[in-house]
Amino acid sequence: MPGMGRTKLLHGAWIVTMDPDLKVYNDGAIFILDDRIKALGPSSDIFPSFSKEADETLDLSGHWIIPGLINTHVHTSQQLARGIADDVDLLTWLHERIWPFESNMTTEDSFLSTLLCGIELIHSGVTCFAEAGGQHVDAMAHAVEKLGIRACLARSTMDTGEGLPASWASESTDSCVKEELFKKYHGSACGRVHVWFGLRQILNATDDLLLRTKELANKYKTGIHMHVAEIPYENKYVSEQRHVEHGTVTYLSKIGLLGSNLLAAHSVWVNPNEVDLMAKSSVKVSHCPASNLRMLGFAPIQEMLSAGVCVSIGTDGAPSNNRMSIVDEMYLASLIHKGKVVFTKGTTDPSALPAECILKMATVGGAKAVLQEHQIGSLEVGKKADLVVINPNTWTMMPIHDPIASLVYSMRTENVDSVMCDGQWIMREKRILTVNEDEIMKLAVEAANGILKRANICIPRRMNVL
Amino acid sequence: MPGMGRTKLLHGAWIVTMDPDLKVYNDGAIFILDDRIKALGPSSDIFPSFSKEADETLDLSGHWIIPGLINTHVHTSQQLARGIADDVDLLTWLHERIWPFESNMTTEDSFLSTLLCGIELIHSGVTCFAEAGGQHVDAMAHAVEKLGIRACLARSTMDTGEGLPASWASESTDSCVKEELFKKYHGSACGRVHVWFGLRQILNATDDLLLRTKELANKYKTGIHMHVAEIPYENKYVSEQRHVEHGTVTYLSKIGLLGSNLLAAHSVWVNPNEVDLMAKSSVKVSHCPASNLRMLGFAPIQEMLSAGVCVSIGTDGAPSNNRMSIVDEMYLASLIHKGKVVFTKGTTDPSALPAECILKMATVGGAKAVLQEHQIGSLEVGKKADLVVINPNTWTMMPIHDPIASLVYSMRTENVDSVMCDGQWIMREKRILTVNEDEIMKLAVEAANGILKRANICIPRRMNVL
Repeated sequence: MPGMGRTKLLHGAWIVTMDPDLKVYNDGAIFILDDRIKALGPSSDIFPSFSKEADETLDLSGHWIIPGLINTHVHTSQQLARGIADDVDLLTWLHERIWPFESNMTTEDSFLSTLLCGIELIHSGVTCFAEAGGQHVDAMAHAVEKLGIRACLARSTMDTGEGLPASWASESTDSCVKEELFKKYHGSACGRVHVWFGLRQILNATDDLLLRTKELANKYKTGIHMHVAEIPYENKYVSEQRHVEHGTVTYLSKIGLLGSNLLAAHSVWVNPNEVDLMAKSSVKVSHCPASNLRMLGFAPIQEMLSAGVCVSIGTDGAPSNNRMSIVDEMYLASLIHKGKVVFTKGTTDPSALPAECILKMATVGGAKAVLQEHQIGSLEVGKKADLVVINPNTWTMMPIHDPIASLVYSMRTENVDSVMCDGQWIMREKRILTVNEDEIMKLAVEAANGILKRANICIPRRMNVL
Repeated sequence: MPGMGRTKLLHGAWIVTMDPDLKVYNDGAIFILDDRIKALGPSSDIFPSFSKEADETLDLSGHWIIPGLINTHVHTSQQLARGIADDVDLLTWLHERIWPFESNMTTEDSFLSTLLCGIELIHSGVTCFAEAGGQHVDAMAHAVEKLGIRACLARSTMDTGEGLPASWASESTDSCVKEELFKKYHGSACGRVHVWFGLRQILNATDDLLLRTKELANKYKTGIHMHVAEIPYENKYVSEQRHVEHGTVTYLSKIGLLGSNLLAAHSVWVNPNEVDLMAKSSVKVSHCPASNLRMLGFAPIQEMLSAGVCVSIGTDGAPSNNRMSIVDEMYLASLIHKGKVVFTKGTTDPSALPAECILKMATVGGAKAVLQEHQIGSLEVGKKADLVVINPNTWTMMPIHDPIASLVYSMRTENVDSVMCDGQWIMREKRILTVNEDEIMKLAVEAANGILKRANICIPRRMNVL
């Protein structure tokens, strides 16, 4: 049966490896054994050497292959909430829409939400994502196993803070720092599922929770996913209540929480000193252009890159984006940093964050952010066979004069043709092979409507509906 | 033969009319006679009244109908140049890439460029566009006739300025203000083609050209399309050389060029006084979010809307965007104005420019901008049958809790299913009916490569190509 063999030979493609030399093969081939890249190079070398032992041989002439994209900040449990909080202020968004919605989700809801989210992730070329933290990690893990994708899952923990839904407000620090989920799911789905520790944000975490989470992550050599420096109020509150000069990053540095296993989502409101602190302690940043633009502000990404901070890209969750495509986020990331300098320099800088820089953020940067740079993020012999086949032969991309740039500036999600994760095809010719898309959409819509009812969320009508 | 009759009945759809009452029909129907909407209302009323006389009856259950979108700033002659000037500064962009490219285009090149651009416009739901000004209006007019779309075409005129290609530098004011194109093509293609007068920008126009263009536009009751207040240097130059306090808009006001027939593209660098001048003289603005972000800056769109300026949306040209989808521009327009206030207020405003406001800009605002608000821009009895059928039943949009918002925040170009212009289907189920997409792509790519060679434009490689 094709596609089920242990070996695959893809040839005739234009291959962007994203390896340390940034090698690109005009007519390249990849030979895959099980979950790994066994050989990679010009088709003229690879094809004759491996064509006999390939269970599946695929001529990808006219197509491009890039590493699987890595989306480092995803709220899978918010996928069913797309559109419940558009055009409302941040407090309404959180207290009246998102928290009531999420706190009314069942395990089954979370399972469907993760599946629906995964469908969108796979269609946009994502082979690995980092969960920002939801409640039902067991459901997420099962969904990720089914989807065939790679993920770093985390439970959102909160042991303090105002305005929390009743069912969340009572959680103790002890119950936040449990190790069960790690022990149960880390390494599951043939190693595709990693379990991380999640901290929602500093306003919802006591020092005890912060420090014990850090201790656990260090003990298990895994990551911590946390929303960091999202709004000026957060910094103000932290500096007043916890007596530091600037804000969250300064405080996290003071108590020893910064480190190479911290994935700091957003990190919008960080000053130059904090950028340095992040660089020195090898903190990883997930930059979320769409949700930042909408709700938080402009993160100092160029400054971070200059300082040596590892920056990756995330979509955030459906109700703050509302597209969940890393392809759109790459496009946005490239544009907003060209534009934002106008506020300091008086003109935009069209050469800021060039296309190759954005591609690095979504591939090798993402791999570092999820602590798997030796396994994924680039196409190299010995690494995992996580890759995306692009069909650029459409009106969305033609003509192509600068192909690397076109991956960032012209490519749209619909140009993603096929996706392989861990050596297995999970999408071929825009059809996901691992789950039934139509069935999941149907069930997900029903589940979403049920949650809205239980949570008693009403979305005002915008027009005169007859 | 289906689709060729004089009457069409579309029913069972969710219809967003964008009429003055912002009526939305949950289960609506439209009856079309030739090029016009003859009846519109609930399916239960319209279907029984018109089903017998319909040559074509289409059940659009589960689909949405919105007015044809209007893209008010498009460089059709730059479509073949997508990707020739990514990540370079503005001067390199203009003098070393775009001008050499455009000045080396033949009439046939422009024909193919407009066709390729039209394919992208139609796929993104555009039924009418305003050309920013190229050289070969005859080629554009023929292409627009073939495409079946609606357009306001303009020749780009320049009678002064530095750095122009030799073939353009010699043009006299007299030859810029000729009336032939208007006489030949205005009203052609069954009235779908309008001819406007084009002014590239103030740095390339003498007062004589500005004033005689205005006179002609007034005489023929047509529009003027001009790039206005794009960069701070433009304002500085104008205020120094032409002795006004601020810049282009102030000067255009002084000489009487502002008026309801001026479509001012970009209008990024306008001060509050100039916003007032634009409002008072009923100038129309084409807001181009992507190219502004990349090359110009943040236009004061909220201030314009508050002052009563008619604001529409444009994609600009392929080398400054590089996507040419009004769907993406709506998304971007909604995001950047939520974000930009952070620079003045310290926090973003997620409620700024809500979805319904963005939809108005792309429909009724666009119709006003192209001086056709009595014909297009909304779905109303007596107006032209220019409409778009959306298929929202995909993973890109599900679940839908706030449908109007989802048109702006979640919808992607690929959700555009069918497009009707002037009562004729020009796209059905994502296949364009009027031209052969594959053939045009092939010819366009060949033509594009030819121009690059003739213009001697070399695009540097970004990676290590083997």
